[in-house]
Amino acid sequence: MRIVVDAMGSDTHPEPDVAGAILAAREFGDEIFLVGDEKQINAELGKTAIGDLPIRVIHASQVIKMTDKPSEASRVKKDSSMHVGLNLVKTGEADAFVSMGNTGGILAVAMLHTLRRIPGVKRPALGVIFPLSNNPLLIDNGANTDAKPDFLLQFALMGSLYVEHVRGLTKPRVGLISNGEEEGKGNQLIKETMPLLAESGLNFIGNIEPKEFIQGKADVGVTDGFIGNIILKTAEAVASYMKDIIREEIRANLLTMAGGLLARPAFKRVGQRLDPAEVGGAPLLGVDGVVIVGHGRSSAYAVKQAIGQARLAVQRDIVEAIRDGLGS
Amino acid sequence: MRIVVDAMGSDTHPEPDVAGAILAAREFGDEIFLVGDEKQINAELGKTAIGDLPIRVIHASQVIKMTDKPSEASRVKKDSSMHVGLNLVKTGEADAFVSMGNTGGILAVAMLHTLRRIPGVKRPALGVIFPLSNNPLLIDNGANTDAKPDFLLQFALMGSLYVEHVRGLTKPRVGLISNGEEEGKGNQLIKETMPLLAESGLNFIGNIEPKEFIQGKADVGVTDGFIGNIILKTAEAVASYMKDIIREEIRANLLTMAGGLLARPAFKRVGQRLDPAEVGGAPLLGVDGVVIVGHGRSSAYAVKQAIGQARLAVQRDIVEAIRDGLGS
Repeated sequence: MRIVVDAMGSDTHPEPDVAGAILAAREFGDEIFLVGDEKQINAELGKTAIGDLPIRVIHASQVIKMTDKPSEASRVKKDSSMHVGLNLVKTGEADAFVSMGNTGGILAVAMLHTLRRIPGVKRPALGVIFPLSNNPLLIDNGANTDAKPDFLLQFALMGSLYVEHVRGLTKPRVGLISNGEEEGKGNQLIKETMPLLAESGLNFIGNIEPKEFIQGKADVGVTDGFIGNIILKTAEAVASYMKDIIREEIRANLLTMAGGLLARPAFKRVGQRLDPAEVGGAPLLGVDGVVIVGHGRSSAYAVKQAIGQARLAVQRDIVEAIRDGLGS
Repeated sequence: MRIVVDAMGSDTHPEPDVAGAILAAREFGDEIFLVGDEKQINAELGKTAIGDLPIRVIHASQVIKMTDKPSEASRVKKDSSMHVGLNLVKTGEADAFVSMGNTGGILAVAMLHTLRRIPGVKRPALGVIFPLSNNPLLIDNGANTDAKPDFLLQFALMGSLYVEHVRGLTKPRVGLISNGEEEGKGNQLIKETMPLLAESGLNFIGNIEPKEFIQGKADVGVTDGFIGNIILKTAEAVASYMKDIIREEIRANLLTMAGGLLARPAFKRVGQRLDPAEVGGAPLLGVDGVVIVGHGRSSAYAVKQAIGQARLAVQRDIVEAIRDGLGS
């Protein structure tokens, strides 16, 4: 297998991107194409004894930065690491693309300039795996801020296929994220989407509240990209706020501080359980190729995990599964 | 001051509702009208020596339950505690209405059958105060699942006036909840609302992400009722999930368990800081009278706090402030 890693993706590129690629080449034995500024990548590679690991450097002269406007940058920076990398997947020279870079940029380059959509896909969508007990997938997560009922139906189908194939779950439970099931609950979009899901043949468990999603009652949570992103960001912010106030209150006196020290291994395990790096990156579903998007603040380990996820998606042929599922 | 308390509101009514009313009568000295099933209320009152506390029981033969459909119940159960109680405010016999009951029911009875809107108000909105360091107000929170830009503009104005008058903050910072400020971020509603807020004369600090709201960067977060409710429910669910896994990991071995015991006072303070009871109930803004809605699972203390909040809203005349603010 040949996996492209965007060496210019993470906030502190190319360090974690290259280091993660090395970890992956070592662990999985796959061929890795590191795409980006040749000089910077080679300098980074030079820091480690990589021996005969199957790592190849492919030069790209431009970088789509976090601060770039996605649609403009995707049009102007045609020699970006994203263009070059995604083109390798498009031409079949590589099997998957992994990047910790600007999500909007990846979306725009993949959808508009390189891979394009799988025929029949109305809108590609970004699935995010939540680091909860059952690792549920929330889809969409920012690719489409104004969705229509038939988009959501496809998000549900693609998300369900991803969880089924890549995670090996049979009949994943699909829930439509809403603010309740009572009369008057749900906005117009939810009300129109619900009957489509009920007739979809998916294992649709009905409308669910964020609480039920967090508690693991669904394997796939379906929502539009705006709300998906709001849920993700609220969850991250609340977890971080709680960590802060717990630390603050524990440090408030010596006795609780001693307790905090003793309980440290427990806090560490909590941190690990909530670490998004463990579950890998976010699959961009509906484009004609395997694309995994990781967090800008990813560590080398997180990059390696995202590469591992990309390989699974290739092995289980998620693109073909979606093509079949859509009957296209 | 005369405050109506819906004795049939909470999940375990009338116990916490009546007990909270007693606490409030004792602490504030205000006259409390307990509205609901006379027998049940008197039985509950009989459990405590209330002496000459200014508490009056007003009979209402029906109850709008949590499971009732709001619009239907508000039409059919004309002698519900909500109808009777809100009518007392409408006729001027009381100054405010406090209920821990069905939010949709309160909304429907207030908007359609009793108080109605302040002239000029397009849609009343429910503000929720988050138990965070700066106690920010999120508005709307479920009253309007499909909002328009001019609704959001009024939510911002009403929320800002509430925070200014009732909490005494000058020039409250108003943020529009979005998924980011970059190009392509925000849905259609956000994009159309932003310029209205920029020209509103409010202290508009721009679009903010849920993270910034949680971190206290705004005093008023503006959003539609669907998203507001999703944020609230996600925040509650994540906080509760974290509590659960911290407890689980601390109990996993004896050493961390000992640490947890020592750190217990810190956890208790964290729990207090995050307790919504501390900040009171949710003001229903835009109806022609003071209405505070509390949580169905409220304790007597939470009911008392909500009553305290209602009195402040009356003292600072929030209804008049909104009437003035709308120029109506």
